[in-house]
Amino acid sequence: MNIRLDIEYDGTDFCGWQRQQDRPTIQAHIEDVVAKVERRKVTVFGAGRTDSGVHAKGQVAHFDSQYGLPAERWRDILNTHLPPSIRIQRATEQPERFHAQKDALTKIYEYRVLNRGAASALDRRVLFNPTPIDWDKVRAALPYFVGYRDFASFQGANASTKTSDRTLLKFELVDDGDGYYRFVLIGTGFLKHMVRNLVGTVLEIGAGKRKAEDIPAIFASCDRRKAGRTAPAHGLCLVRVNYPGDAVPSQAGI
Amino acid sequence: MNIRLDIEYDGTDFCGWQRQQDRPTIQAHIEDVVAKVERRKVTVFGAGRTDSGVHAKGQVAHFDSQYGLPAERWRDILNTHLPPSIRIQRATEQPERFHAQKDALTKIYEYRVLNRGAASALDRRVLFNPTPIDWDKVRAALPYFVGYRDFASFQGANASTKTSDRTLLKFELVDDGDGYYRFVLIGTGFLKHMVRNLVGTVLEIGAGKRKAEDIPAIFASCDRRKAGRTAPAHGLCLVRVNYPGDAVPSQAGI
Repeated sequence: MNIRLDIEYDGTDFCGWQRQQDRPTIQAHIEDVVAKVERRKVTVFGAGRTDSGVHAKGQVAHFDSQYGLPAERWRDILNTHLPPSIRIQRATEQPERFHAQKDALTKIYEYRVLNRGAASALDRRVLFNPTPIDWDKVRAALPYFVGYRDFASFQGANASTKTSDRTLLKFELVDDGDGYYRFVLIGTGFLKHMVRNLVGTVLEIGAGKRKAEDIPAIFASCDRRKAGRTAPAHGLCLVRVNYPGDAVPSQAGI
Repeated sequence: MNIRLDIEYDGTDFCGWQRQQDRPTIQAHIEDVVAKVERRKVTVFGAGRTDSGVHAKGQVAHFDSQYGLPAERWRDILNTHLPPSIRIQRATEQPERFHAQKDALTKIYEYRVLNRGAASALDRRVLFNPTPIDWDKVRAALPYFVGYRDFASFQGANASTKTSDRTLLKFELVDDGDGYYRFVLIGTGFLKHMVRNLVGTVLEIGAGKRKAEDIPAIFASCDRRKAGRTAPAHGLCLVRVNYPGDAVPSQAGI
């Protein structure tokens, strides 16, 4: 039985999604519980990797179960054995052909920034930046990034993909009040560190360190060193993965 | 100089607001930093105590500074030395007569409940309750508590107040979606454990364990054992303390 998991996690204490030798990752935690129940080694395929420290509200994964449990039961079984910083929100049976990564149409990421004098004690999954940012300049820079482009200048080192061409469908800024700002990015696929490099670059534009008009030259250079710094992981969250036939909430946009 | 502090804290790792012998409290952390700067013992007076594990978005306190710094500077000085789970949001000079506790007109508390099958990995300052709750019944019970009443049945043990008469101005339930519910309580003063005992009682009504019609008898008994269980601390947050002349956001209600 092909089981889909919808997963929320606080990435703070994990070395990202993907299993690594002797380091705590979300995939390893889930695979270990599944393996214990199934009494065999099982791979849990995620829709995409998230970096060390990155959070997820709607990561999706699938695995093959031969244990015979109703799919829904996996939610509570996994939650009983997983740390509280990983919570399975849904476990559902899927057609055999469903593949969490290959079938994903688009992904929605959010990157949050707190731009005011004092950090928040209650909300620490946000980039705290007490220095002035010209948010109008930031907003004006976003359309430069949208479309089908070669994002080589915004790709982290040691990436393993064949091509750095990607389609960014949406790059928007939401003012959530009280100094909170939220970037919403929707794309068909994202390169390693891509969201954090885009956000780092537009924040430098907002700080007056570079100009929106320089963005085409950054793209054309295909040189990571021409773009801005990588924004820290703790402000980033994988909000949702969209699949064919999903009932998409209208606010999700695409 | 009389300094007012507006303070946000995550109460998870503290034994409440009030200084205690050898236990980590918010008041002790702040007093220790102030004392180090002022080079003398200084009392930081809070608008009210919060219990162990209770959070605050808008606790208010004041203290007397003789150091001669501009009031605003205290925000960053304190934040530099306090743990990230305590953040001073504002430090402002007040008239000598200002007293954080005695001048408080009303306090706003929120208690949050997550009522769905799976807990949240990202939001753990909420009471997770996966069993069915009839929220219409909960909502219908709230008006029974509003008004000037003797809340003796809802007061924690070993309370030190002279009278248990209090005025509850507002007790409302907000449906925040996705299984999140939020009680908003506004009152001129709250007894020890009062919010948690009120919430615990109405949640038992929502679970079908007691009826709204029994509330007058619970009040009349003046017997703590007649009311419901104390809801856990981690769902509670002191949102705001209102003072005369405050610019109150309209959403705050009173």
